[in-house]
Amino acid sequence: MIDLRPVLFLIGLLLSVLACGMIVPAAVDLVEGHPDWQVFAASFAVTLFAGVALVLTTRGAWSGFNLRQGFLMTTLAWIVVALFGALPFAFSELQLGFTDAFFESMSGVTTTGATVIVGLDEAPPGILLWRAILQWLGGIGIIVMAVAVLPMLQVGGMQLFRVEAFETDKVLPRAAAIAAGIVTIYVAMTAFAALLLGYLGMSAFDAVAHAMTSIATGGYSTRDGSIGHFDSAQIDYAISLFMVMGSVPFVLYLRAVRGNVLALLQDTQVRWMLAVLAAAIALLILELTLRGLMQAEDALRYATFNVISIMTGTGYATAAFDQWGGFAMSLFFMLMFIGGCAGSTTCGIKIFRFQILAAVANAQLKRLMQPHGVFIAYYNGRPIPEGVAISVMSFFFFFAATFGLLAVGLGLIGLDYVTALSGAAAAIANVGPGLGETIGPAGTYAPLPDAAKWLLSVGMLLGRLELFTVLVLLTPHFWRN
Amino acid sequence: MIDLRPVLFLIGLLLSVLACGMIVPAAVDLVEGHPDWQVFAASFAVTLFAGVALVLTTRGAWSGFNLRQGFLMTTLAWIVVALFGALPFAFSELQLGFTDAFFESMSGVTTTGATVIVGLDEAPPGILLWRAILQWLGGIGIIVMAVAVLPMLQVGGMQLFRVEAFETDKVLPRAAAIAAGIVTIYVAMTAFAALLLGYLGMSAFDAVAHAMTSIATGGYSTRDGSIGHFDSAQIDYAISLFMVMGSVPFVLYLRAVRGNVLALLQDTQVRWMLAVLAAAIALLILELTLRGLMQAEDALRYATFNVISIMTGTGYATAAFDQWGGFAMSLFFMLMFIGGCAGSTTCGIKIFRFQILAAVANAQLKRLMQPHGVFIAYYNGRPIPEGVAISVMSFFFFFAATFGLLAVGLGLIGLDYVTALSGAAAAIANVGPGLGETIGPAGTYAPLPDAAKWLLSVGMLLGRLELFTVLVLLTPHFWRN
Repeated sequence: MIDLRPVLFLIGLLLSVLACGMIVPAAVDLVEGHPDWQVFAASFAVTLFAGVALVLTTRGAWSGFNLRQGFLMTTLAWIVVALFGALPFAFSELQLGFTDAFFESMSGVTTTGATVIVGLDEAPPGILLWRAILQWLGGIGIIVMAVAVLPMLQVGGMQLFRVEAFETDKVLPRAAAIAAGIVTIYVAMTAFAALLLGYLGMSAFDAVAHAMTSIATGGYSTRDGSIGHFDSAQIDYAISLFMVMGSVPFVLYLRAVRGNVLALLQDTQVRWMLAVLAAAIALLILELTLRGLMQAEDALRYATFNVISIMTGTGYATAAFDQWGGFAMSLFFMLMFIGGCAGSTTCGIKIFRFQILAAVANAQLKRLMQPHGVFIAYYNGRPIPEGVAISVMSFFFFFAATFGLLAVGLGLIGLDYVTALSGAAAAIANVGPGLGETIGPAGTYAPLPDAAKWLLSVGMLLGRLELFTVLVLLTPHFWRN
Repeated sequence: MIDLRPVLFLIGLLLSVLACGMIVPAAVDLVEGHPDWQVFAASFAVTLFAGVALVLTTRGAWSGFNLRQGFLMTTLAWIVVALFGALPFAFSELQLGFTDAFFESMSGVTTTGATVIVGLDEAPPGILLWRAILQWLGGIGIIVMAVAVLPMLQVGGMQLFRVEAFETDKVLPRAAAIAAGIVTIYVAMTAFAALLLGYLGMSAFDAVAHAMTSIATGGYSTRDGSIGHFDSAQIDYAISLFMVMGSVPFVLYLRAVRGNVLALLQDTQVRWMLAVLAAAIALLILELTLRGLMQAEDALRYATFNVISIMTGTGYATAAFDQWGGFAMSLFFMLMFIGGCAGSTTCGIKIFRFQILAAVANAQLKRLMQPHGVFIAYYNGRPIPEGVAISVMSFFFFFAATFGLLAVGLGLIGLDYVTALSGAAAAIANVGPGLGETIGPAGTYAPLPDAAKWLLSVGMLLGRLELFTVLVLLTPHFWRN
């Protein structure tokens, strides 16, 4: 049997944190005189009660974590947090059904940003803030998990980053200290983003909400028109910067703060991410200007913002980019899968996995010519261990298989071709909006049937937890003694 | 320097074979009184002259083949054959331009089946036969290459089949004997298919042409309406059978003929292929009947034929299956990538690569729970060598990268989303028709811009030669001493 006590203890702690997060929208709604404050107060009470009860009944004589508990805790934590996070959506004046409330909450904590709420412009402020807080908590949650838990679980090549963060480099050796440092940086970045957005003309409320969802590369907006609502080139560029900031491994910021600024600039993953972004933006500018859709200045602005928004999995929109023609559609469809760096708030396959795959494939291409030659694949200047290559390969397999099953499932439910394919991609890569009329940048997920929303929720969870963490629970092997 | 003599010698031989193939349509056109017979006769003369000249000038004192020559020969052979195969298209009464003629010829020899010819029903018989012959020669060419050349080149995991065919089993140990046996079986199967199709009501001409393009899983038809033209359930099922027959490793037939029938039934790749086909057909029948698009009997017939046609990369059509809704579209899009067995006439990623990926990923999933446990991935009852896993992983990488670049390139040229994505997939997986109005089962590739046709031709070549064979020529490593 698995000792569930440490698992439930940690989930209790997380629920307590979530409960505290509910105080903020309660206060805002109270100040604004909106009756929803009672919903947040009640949700706070329920969530805090559940959290404290779990903590009190499970603390005690257990010692440490084993692998099995690690896997179970990670998956369960995300599901439980999404469940309690759904309470305000279900009972607020929006009156979302259980499916919609859970979908919105799961989309929030996984920093996906797919929404079922129509009419954000008239939505109560508490709800808008709650969506931003869910993404913000989900963002920091995934960073800490990527540093502290996933490498231990050896999930999809993440063991590569265990070595770097905990052993070789000796940066703040204890995990708790690293976590505290990362949280500080995350808070500081969000504050900086909020101040800058306020300075550029957003209201304090909008500035704080968008700061949270930008750094978390989440993409929930307070406006139906998303960032396009503000129609400001300066805001577009500022948010582009924040999204990129959220896509960098936060461990590197920690090193930079501690004096090693070069670590940030020399990291191969960061460089590749910037190179891919630059290439995609350049291609798109070329396309937009050559086809006469935009002047150069506008093309630079809209290409920069939307390429970054999609590739980092944020999902804000400033334009109906699915009207830009076949090239843009194909490009955005592929950018969805890429994502940012490991150890950031982004999702998707992630840059380092492409680098490892490319390095291994390249070595293989050379080996073809000299079957007995020795060709070693490198990542960040070090040979790639065989186990990591196999892990990454397996990740790609499960990613493709999950995407395929999800798309077929959505098709079977009755969604059209573009919606099924892009919806599956947008969920598993935690992007948010898909392509096409229904779920594209100008639409919402509200019209989809319930079954599709549940499937997409599962996809978001799988994508956010790097597939393996969830899939391993489905093997009989896991539950055997 | 690479000694080109053995490379050119073999290409000369192939051109001579190709030239002989041109006699048949010349004869048919002559008998039918069609002036195109002169075009074929002239093409025959030119091709034979080139072939014989190459053979005569390069035979002699060279001994054996090295790896480098193997790679060069394979890629060059396909390009040169496509060039000479284009002659009749360019100079016949169809008056195709150089781009169209080369596209049609490359689509033929790679058994893709994408066509730029509008009005097959009125096309001269010689041309229709020539298209079938190109695919038929391409089909046997790829089988022999998959048995004799690719395993030696260790391309994308094909080394797995070297062991099986040449070393362990000792079936007809000499490569030449194996090749002769396979050619015999291929001819016999084609004859059987032609007789059965004739018996089921096709004219002798149509029966022979469709027998050739079915066994080759090529998909060129003599009719604008493809197999749908004949509107016969019996013909549909018969051709479904032939397409599956062409998708099985021909080495297994050889063993079956020599008494080991079990080898055919027990082969894991064959079983998996049949399982995947059955699952896809069942799903599609469910979808077609539940949505009320068809009665059960029609659903069985159309689902069986079209699933087999797309997954094996044949590309015949009996219905505008892209009008069957989102689920069918998504399903067909994915089936395109799968393909049949290694060592058959099919293209695509191929079943065994999915099996290896799944086995490796599965072992990896188990390993997550017990990082120090030993979990070995098996294929066909034997442990998968590490090199094979890495080869297969690299194949997937290059396949995805090529698909992505091709789709982006097509989009950049100006094709719409569905055409760009499905065209890229249909080319690299040698399927033929794509999805959507332009290149879907009811359309042709004729309206596409020339640049798109060239890109697609490159995609077909890359897909047919399992990527590595071509890509290795692009590395500086290859040309260094």
